[in-house]
Amino acid sequence: MKESQPAAPHETTIRVRYDETDPMGFLHHSKYYTYFEIARTEMLRDSGGNYRHMEESGLFAVVVKAECKYHKPARYDDVVKILTTLRAISAAKIEHEYVVMRGPDRLATAHITLALVDRAGQIQKVPDWLRALK
Amino acid sequence: MKESQPAAPHETTIRVRYDETDPMGFLHHSKYYTYFEIARTEMLRDSGGNYRHMEESGLFAVVVKAECKYHKPARYDDVVKILTTLRAISAAKIEHEYVVMRGPDRLATAHITLALVDRAGQIQKVPDWLRALK
Amino acid sequence: MKESQPAAPHETTIRVRYDETDPMGFLHHSKYYTYFEIARTEMLRDSGGNYRHMEESGLFAVVVKAECKYHKPARYDDVVKILTTLRAISAAKIEHEYVVMRGPDRLATAHITLALVDRAGQIQKVPDWLRALK
Amino acid sequence: MKESQPAAPHETTIRVRYDETDPMGFLHHSKYYTYFEIARTEMLRDSGGNYRHMEESGLFAVVVKAECKYHKPARYDDVVKILTTLRAISAAKIEHEYVVMRGPDRLATAHITLALVDRAGQIQKVPDWLRALK
Repeated sequence: MKESQPAAPHETTIRVRYDETDPMGFLHHSKYYTYFEIARTEMLRDSGGNYRHMEESGLFAVVVKAECKYHKPARYDDVVKILTTLRAISAAKIEHEYVVMRGPDRLATAHITLALVDRAGQIQKVPDWLRALK
Repeated sequence: MKESQPAAPHETTIRVRYDETDPMGFLHHSKYYTYFEIARTEMLRDSGGNYRHMEESGLFAVVVKAECKYHKPARYDDVVKILTTLRAISAAKIEHEYVVMRGPDRLATAHITLALVDRAGQIQKVPDWLRALK
Repeated sequence: MKESQPAAPHETTIRVRYDETDPMGFLHHSKYYTYFEIARTEMLRDSGGNYRHMEESGLFAVVVKAECKYHKPARYDDVVKILTTLRAISAAKIEHEYVVMRGPDRLATAHITLALVDRAGQIQKVPDWLRALK
Repeated sequence: MKESQPAAPHETTIRVRYDETDPMGFLHHSKYYTYFEIARTEMLRDSGGNYRHMEESGLFAVVVKAECKYHKPARYDDVVKILTTLRAISAAKIEHEYVVMRGPDRLATAHITLALVDRAGQIQKVPDWLRALK
């Protein structure tokens, strides 16, 4: 397993939608995972990859493990920034770290591990081109 | 086009989930369409059909037209009843009416028209077995 | 009721998210309502209003009627444009038309009518400043 | 912190909805958190509590930490069982374990830690009545 080099994290900006917030007025905790998915998709796009094309070619990323710490709530209409860092990539797994910021405030920190499967759900090797993109 | 006979509407009961409600504490207006989808799926199941099997056999229902009037809001943890009535079925389209009730209160009334497509998105005839189920 | 003047529709661009698409690979029909909500919120913002501030001041927009025709499906990762036009505004109601485009293709057309309520759900007059923004 | 006694886990049954599944046909990984929320709400209800009443009295549960391992995918229309166990409860925090089963197959295992806050977001002590319910 190759550890990723220290590099500036990738940044994705998202505005919190009305229907993503709950009766407390907070972004529902489950929606952070949607934001993380968008963040890693945009990171891949900015590296020259394309997740839609990956799926069309029969390679699907599945989440095998996720954990998130929620420090402060995000609210409706807030603009948050997702800082995404590739933490590790091997033939078997891809792990990213995600930090959600609103201005100077850190709202959440997460780690998510992906594996790749084919259309039948069988585990696939992480291809070299993907490992090279990083 | 055969008009459906007057018959008791099909009933589906759903409890409003926390993440379906918005900062007003109301069930978000978009979620009613999820409830209607569940209602027609359960109506099909109770008639001896199965939507998952339909999809596995390559026949997909797509919404071509939807309209909904919202009379009163549903709130978190409310138990609502969806009353579903088949309004019309032809070789080309299926139309249901949906009424959302909370106890004696009518919360919403909707009409949704479905068409059937194959995996490639081509319009398909509504099969006789489906027209017979009704 | 004052009819709105012919004016260029407001444009909002949205990329279809993975978790908004269904097993057919299509944007779920219920999610269009989320897109329309974003579109009218951004239209208000671009006119100098702010829906979050409206809510903080105790004025909430509720959907009282919605209808949508779905012409062609949107797919994961598509970039769609929502063209929003104010169709009518009175002391009681606000009606917009929404057209969803993907490149030259019209994917959906909708009309949604809003009313304003206070925190207790009582109908409020559409304020003059909002009618002036249009 | 009082460790919970070994007791049979609480069971909640949920049918996977169409709009919760993604283009792979799998229940989206973010939706498991919605299922866990339903499971702990029903567990509270079956113990004589009521989360809606808690919120109406000004006490809100917020997720401060969540982690989930995904073993096998759930699919559209699957009926899954959520087995919920209270793992620890103190004046400051509540931790549950959740296991998602489909028949004999374990699909996911999660741990979620809650804290209680008031309407202003200030941390509150877990009340004795809640600690007694367990």
